[in-house]
Amino acid sequence: MTLTDLIQTRTSASNYDSSHQMSAAEIGELVALATQAPSAFNLQNWTFIAVHSDEAKARLLPLAFGQPKVVAAAVTFIICGTLAPHLTVSAALKPTLDAGIIDPTIYNGWVGAVQTMYRDNPSFQRDEAIRSASLAAMTLMLAAQDKGLVSCPMIGFNQAGVAEAFGLTQTEVPVMLVTVGRPGPGNWPKKPRKQISEVLTFA
Amino acid sequence: MTLTDLIQTRTSASNYDSSHQMSAAEIGELVALATQAPSAFNLQNWTFIAVHSDEAKARLLPLAFGQPKVVAAAVTFIICGTLAPHLTVSAALKPTLDAGIIDPTIYNGWVGAVQTMYRDNPSFQRDEAIRSASLAAMTLMLAAQDKGLVSCPMIGFNQAGVAEAFGLTQTEVPVMLVTVGRPGPGNWPKKPRKQISEVLTFA
Repeated sequence: MTLTDLIQTRTSASNYDSSHQMSAAEIGELVALATQAPSAFNLQNWTFIAVHSDEAKARLLPLAFGQPKVVAAAVTFIICGTLAPHLTVSAALKPTLDAGIIDPTIYNGWVGAVQTMYRDNPSFQRDEAIRSASLAAMTLMLAAQDKGLVSCPMIGFNQAGVAEAFGLTQTEVPVMLVTVGRPGPGNWPKKPRKQISEVLTFA
Repeated sequence: MTLTDLIQTRTSASNYDSSHQMSAAEIGELVALATQAPSAFNLQNWTFIAVHSDEAKARLLPLAFGQPKVVAAAVTFIICGTLAPHLTVSAALKPTLDAGIIDPTIYNGWVGAVQTMYRDNPSFQRDEAIRSASLAAMTLMLAAQDKGLVSCPMIGFNQAGVAEAFGLTQTEVPVMLVTVGRPGPGNWPKKPRKQISEVLTFA
């Protein structure tokens, strides 16, 4: 399938084949593709928890307000964005420096810029966490579609409860749940989109 | 190219062929694909401003802190997420109801849920604006890559200045700039990513 077909045919699926399981390797392959998404200063300020055991699915279910897809889908990803990039940028960028892609001047410049932009700006830290996690989430959903799977992004969940139940750190913001698996029967067709003229202007 | 190849080869490009221009139809096609991204309750809480005229590029340049790519690239999208979904959900979901995809009970349930979740929660409104715009932005960047173009997401810009200079409404949050065009010489190769074991855990 072409990318255009993948984009056009992707829908948010509520119903899953509950007999389908995914291996750790299959799950890791999706995350490896998701992390090819861009992030500001290549911070890669994201983490993924793959909820796939029966026990963890049962733990997640009430925190997702009882939505059965988190149990029926092979895996539900808790996709987090991370805060406080001024504390992590030096390490995150080091491999890019070591690979010779950026030189020490740029490295130091970017590390300094991240201090200036984020350190005293918790709101911008949160924005960045949500941006980066969402870019990765979209890549993951398209990668799943390409493998013949379906997915659903979910924002209806108890964020504090998920953080507690799955041991998130203080700097991990659970941005989205994404279910992935084989489709079950009765999923909705693609929902209509607005006319382009309603959302696009030229300047 | 397969989706995996597109994802693996996409890089954030700083250098563009400044002689390359894109037609309104080509720009519209990218946005049409971007808006196939999912959004909570199918709110489609995003807008796009395609900055492609010389005058508008000159207006954007200082607000993007002089980064030359916003002038050299064929187009720079100002991708906005929109706030206050409780005011727009009825209209946004109506075509989904009219198409018979959801019934009146679900329609009314979702409209009510959006009131409850967002109306008195400006922070969650902002989160949603950033999430939806970012999902659309990632789809747009991959669609550009599929057309042999390159792109770069940018968060280094004066948000208030862009809002003022491009006439954004009170409910439009400029989440990201995304340059799109043909590559110029000297772009960086793909920057290395963390090991999967650093970002993925299983539960």
